[in-house]
Amino acid sequence: MAPQRILITGCNRGIGLELVHQLLQQPNPPKQIFATCRNPNSPQNQKLNELAAQNPSVVVIKLEATNSNSIQEAKKEVEKHLHGAGLNVLINNAGIMSDSRPESADSEDFLNVYNTNVVGPLLITKAFLPFLKKAAKENPDKPLGCGKSALINVSTLLGSIEKTPETFFSFPVLSYRCSKAALNMLTRCQSLEFQKDGILCTALHPGWVQTDLGGPHAPLTVDQSVKGIIKVLGNLSENHAGILVDWEGNIIPW
Amino acid sequence: MAPQRILITGCNRGIGLELVHQLLQQPNPPKQIFATCRNPNSPQNQKLNELAAQNPSVVVIKLEATNSNSIQEAKKEVEKHLHGAGLNVLINNAGIMSDSRPESADSEDFLNVYNTNVVGPLLITKAFLPFLKKAAKENPDKPLGCGKSALINVSTLLGSIEKTPETFFSFPVLSYRCSKAALNMLTRCQSLEFQKDGILCTALHPGWVQTDLGGPHAPLTVDQSVKGIIKVLGNLSENHAGILVDWEGNIIPW
Repeated sequence: MAPQRILITGCNRGIGLELVHQLLQQPNPPKQIFATCRNPNSPQNQKLNELAAQNPSVVVIKLEATNSNSIQEAKKEVEKHLHGAGLNVLINNAGIMSDSRPESADSEDFLNVYNTNVVGPLLITKAFLPFLKKAAKENPDKPLGCGKSALINVSTLLGSIEKTPETFFSFPVLSYRCSKAALNMLTRCQSLEFQKDGILCTALHPGWVQTDLGGPHAPLTVDQSVKGIIKVLGNLSENHAGILVDWEGNIIPW
Repeated sequence: MAPQRILITGCNRGIGLELVHQLLQQPNPPKQIFATCRNPNSPQNQKLNELAAQNPSVVVIKLEATNSNSIQEAKKEVEKHLHGAGLNVLINNAGIMSDSRPESADSEDFLNVYNTNVVGPLLITKAFLPFLKKAAKENPDKPLGCGKSALINVSTLLGSIEKTPETFFSFPVLSYRCSKAALNMLTRCQSLEFQKDGILCTALHPGWVQTDLGGPHAPLTVDQSVKGIIKVLGNLSENHAGILVDWEGNIIPW
């Protein structure tokens, strides 16, 4: 896909961490990978810190998706490192999930999950938007895609209202589903708003993956999912503006 | 549609108030209409209070959709008036909307709108669920519908992700759109969960209506919209379980 500069949230583990890892192994790796996490100094962040120590292109940035001040601090830090260049790709990957059923769901969980999974990507995108716009301007002749400027919101099949009857009883995660349906709407609106600026906006379902969030019974390894995601990102075009696509490139209905 | 007992939230004005008004005029009006509003003693509630004074079947109930204690108080009050009977229809009509664009939207507005438009209906439905289940049990031989037991969540065309490109630039209400996409998901999940209990769950688009929320340029009068809604409610069947239908009975894609 060859984006020169990319930012990924939630990189301390799972899909975020593996994205950093596999992007470094590409024949044409990014010049800069901004890998954000909530607490860079935590022991949970060891693997990411090791990757960064071995690869000067990886810059670890502290970012708490539900904290406006933290987002602004992260923006300043990234701006320093960009030295006036644009940011080609922003991947809003950080997200949370919790058990929640129609008869037991509560207000606190619903608001908490929405805050992280929807408001977070909204605020992060607002903050880094000038850099995405800049990357698009740097590449006026390139087609819409990750080589130019792209916003990727990591969503899920479980956020598809249409597909819900197929998965509802296996995955009782009501607050998560509602947040991801809303994130799909956010992506669609961002796509309509930012297409004039040359920014592609797409929602991505990474598959059901063996991560802390996906659990040990998931059919996909993180390696398989991320291999697919990187291939899909490379193929994204104007045909994928404002849609939900999975790790194999299949379109998922809303 | 002939539900014997119905509860409607947000009845101090607009569609809620007109629903109470027109239900009273039906050839076979409900035995009890529980009309909730945030502040029954407010001057803004005068028309509803007048309707209640003239019609003993209308019971005005104080209910604040974002306040769990208020919902529990309202539940106790309704329970007293039901005298052991079930509640046939719950209409989650209360909702809010505000201007919000991808580049200016903020956290507070997003969480506030989600709290009223999604968490509110979630909590209210949980609270009144025992009465809806009771109504279904009272009518074991009736088909799924408002004559038996039904949950209606008032949604909107603007919550349709599929249709967003047609309406996006005319209605810059990002936080509202995201909340209603989530409400559509909530409705779909509630439908799957509660169908075993004999409760029909449907999301309803009332049209673009001349209310405080819809503004003066809307093409539909409140009277027209509510006439349509009452007809649609009367025709709801198992075919409408977990879908989004408009005031004329047309199905809207997600």
